[in-house]
Amino acid sequence: MNFLERHDLPLSKIPKRWYNVVPDLPRIPDDYLHPVTREPVDREFMERLLPKALVAQESSMERWITIPEEVRAAYRLWRPTPLFRAHGLERHLDTPAEIYFKYEGASPSGSHKLNSALAQAYYAKLEGVDRLVTDTGAGQWGSALSLACSLFGIKALAYMVRASYESKPYRRNLMETFGQQVLPSPGPHTEYGRALLAGTPDHPGSEATAVSEALETVRRNPGDRFSMGAFANHVLLHQTVVGLETREQLAEIGKQPDHLVASVGCGSNMGGFAFPFVSDKLAGADIGILAAEPAACPTLTAGEYRYDFADGSGSGPMARTYTLGYEFVPPPIHSGGLRYHGAAPLVGLARHEGILDSRAYAQREVFEAGTLFARLHGLVPAPESAHAIRAVIDLAQECTRQRRHAVIVFCYSGHGLLDLGAYRSFNAGEMADAEPYEVALAAGEPAVAGLAG
Amino acid sequence: MNFLERHDLPLSKIPKRWYNVVPDLPRIPDDYLHPVTREPVDREFMERLLPKALVAQESSMERWITIPEEVRAAYRLWRPTPLFRAHGLERHLDTPAEIYFKYEGASPSGSHKLNSALAQAYYAKLEGVDRLVTDTGAGQWGSALSLACSLFGIKALAYMVRASYESKPYRRNLMETFGQQVLPSPGPHTEYGRALLAGTPDHPGSEATAVSEALETVRRNPGDRFSMGAFANHVLLHQTVVGLETREQLAEIGKQPDHLVASVGCGSNMGGFAFPFVSDKLAGADIGILAAEPAACPTLTAGEYRYDFADGSGSGPMARTYTLGYEFVPPPIHSGGLRYHGAAPLVGLARHEGILDSRAYAQREVFEAGTLFARLHGLVPAPESAHAIRAVIDLAQECTRQRRHAVIVFCYSGHGLLDLGAYRSFNAGEMADAEPYEVALAAGEPAVAGLAG
Repeated sequence: MNFLERHDLPLSKIPKRWYNVVPDLPRIPDDYLHPVTREPVDREFMERLLPKALVAQESSMERWITIPEEVRAAYRLWRPTPLFRAHGLERHLDTPAEIYFKYEGASPSGSHKLNSALAQAYYAKLEGVDRLVTDTGAGQWGSALSLACSLFGIKALAYMVRASYESKPYRRNLMETFGQQVLPSPGPHTEYGRALLAGTPDHPGSEATAVSEALETVRRNPGDRFSMGAFANHVLLHQTVVGLETREQLAEIGKQPDHLVASVGCGSNMGGFAFPFVSDKLAGADIGILAAEPAACPTLTAGEYRYDFADGSGSGPMARTYTLGYEFVPPPIHSGGLRYHGAAPLVGLARHEGILDSRAYAQREVFEAGTLFARLHGLVPAPESAHAIRAVIDLAQECTRQRRHAVIVFCYSGHGLLDLGAYRSFNAGEMADAEPYEVALAAGEPAVAGLAG
Repeated sequence: MNFLERHDLPLSKIPKRWYNVVPDLPRIPDDYLHPVTREPVDREFMERLLPKALVAQESSMERWITIPEEVRAAYRLWRPTPLFRAHGLERHLDTPAEIYFKYEGASPSGSHKLNSALAQAYYAKLEGVDRLVTDTGAGQWGSALSLACSLFGIKALAYMVRASYESKPYRRNLMETFGQQVLPSPGPHTEYGRALLAGTPDHPGSEATAVSEALETVRRNPGDRFSMGAFANHVLLHQTVVGLETREQLAEIGKQPDHLVASVGCGSNMGGFAFPFVSDKLAGADIGILAAEPAACPTLTAGEYRYDFADGSGSGPMARTYTLGYEFVPPPIHSGGLRYHGAAPLVGLARHEGILDSRAYAQREVFEAGTLFARLHGLVPAPESAHAIRAVIDLAQECTRQRRHAVIVFCYSGHGLLDLGAYRSFNAGEMADAEPYEVALAAGEPAVAGLAG
């Protein structure tokens, strides 16, 4: 029997405040720049884009921000989430390392994404916003925002990356079951989408194309506001409930983490999980923070730290962070949530400042790790989470070789029950690795799309 | 905001003993009969079929049976489960009733089924069984048994009702991801399957055909044992962790249930949820126990109480319970778990003794209830659970009309994340109601299959 050892928190321990890492970082993030003037964006520009409360959070220098009571009440749907120790995986790897994971997979939308979705829907409702418009990759974020908007009684529209829209119908059906609207990106509903399709009729889309279509829609409809599932500081802020709970759970069992591991697409999972440990690290604690990325889209591992557009059309704000170039369209791997050319500016800054490291993994070694984990522990991880598991296995095997004890803690960001087609493909031996980024780059392929296409 | 009010139990309150309702029933269930001799089956017959520990539980007269520590440890993966109060649904219905539900949807296999699967896999492993062979309808039970067998390190084979095998590929993929085997029923792997297909090449299968194929397989392989996801007394016994926790949670908030509601396919959900309240009821507490069934397969509502075969071939044991006739093949509705001609003998006996009532619902009114619930509370119920929600809505509306307060508690037996194709069909207006049983009966259609076919 491959026991999991479970550590719970009582309902009363749902965090009362989000943690804002900015005041604790070695330096303040660079301003967002206006896409045309290249000057720092002003409050007016941002407030046309986002609910005012989120604009305020975006540039806040307060270390602690109170979670509204309505949002905490909604968190009670599934929070606090358990911290598990994976004895079975430890035994299987015959490692001296202890392996723990924070389990976000029992969220009703299926992942950690709901932590920010509920906050955003709450503020939007409070400010009288008609509709939140967003982009979604594999659909985890779209599902979460659809659910949250249903609970708070407002409308949601998600532009879903076409590759996922077509390969993951259940995610789309989930959003529609919540009564919300989903459109494939690129699609014929925006100028940008029509232009892309004219150039590349079978364009698979990317997070960047979906962002562009969402931004265009918001610009056209005064009652709409944009909603982000990652990237922005305020999203990472909301996700810190994950790391705050983890920190408390580890303290309760007297454990100090040596390694914190999370997958990174844009970085809300990593930021939410690891940032609450950053001040410990900066105060001298020996904590390695490792981002697990797909080899087909290794933003932190192979990207450049510079200003770039956050979207794929070059019409949205610019931010300084790691990027593979805004025109890069990642190949359609199964981890739709990780197909993004950039990284959240705070995660990029943390990488730039040496606070976190990254490694990139090919698709099949990721699914091998996910399948192993499912069989050992009865939990089928989302492909995104399986990247973290792959990295954890490698770290634990290093511990075995070095006969080194370590406490490894990773974030199990979501379940893979709507990704079972991908697992089927892997188990049937039909899955291929996507072309690694470097190979695509050498062949001159990365910039296959964008408005130029 | 449609708050759910949540009531948790600490990990230490996972029940230490299962509750056996038999000693508390007005009379003892009738014996199982041998399919050929029609004499009561003996221990030897049963022990060729099932692990010995389960045979002992099947006829136990002990009121309380200790849960092995290994099984309790596995329950910690997701138990105790929350009890929620559905304020949003109450407000939506403008009802004076209080509506609570026991939430089994965060189980890693997706439903309550795992409560018995873990116990069965544990005993099978302990007794050196090679492989557990089972039948599964929508795949909830097959997923649960596959998961449990992976955890305890033994093999599982599930015969999956063909209609679901084809319409729910993700459930099949889930079992395969756990490393276990799934075959469609009827299929070419057994004599019974081949005979059925010869007569009806597009036979949709049913729980009964899958049981027959599983039994035939077990008879041919000495290291195999049969595993049931419902029906048997020992399965209902294992499921009582659901009702025992519910009873404790209601007591903690000082509530007495007036109505207990659960869907019934065969009855493990209903038995596990409601039986721990039966002694209260028999001692005089005014508790209505309501079974929600599909109109296309209304066993408790329209069936007869008599001896009948438990399987579809007439080769398995006979039991006295409610039945629509073992040759009845229910139409392929989306609630695969409810497509069974019979009922668990203990649930049948409880119905016969007036301990529980039943109502039958058409498919679309069930999905209407499930969709409403998803939008109000962010939880998409399995179609099986949506039957209970339909019944709860009707009860609550009766309370509204009668201006009557009542405490209604239902079992949310599983999530519907692998049933989203059915929700899509409903939301697109493409779903039809299956022919109600009475109509099919009048047309002489119910006995369309079986070996005679």
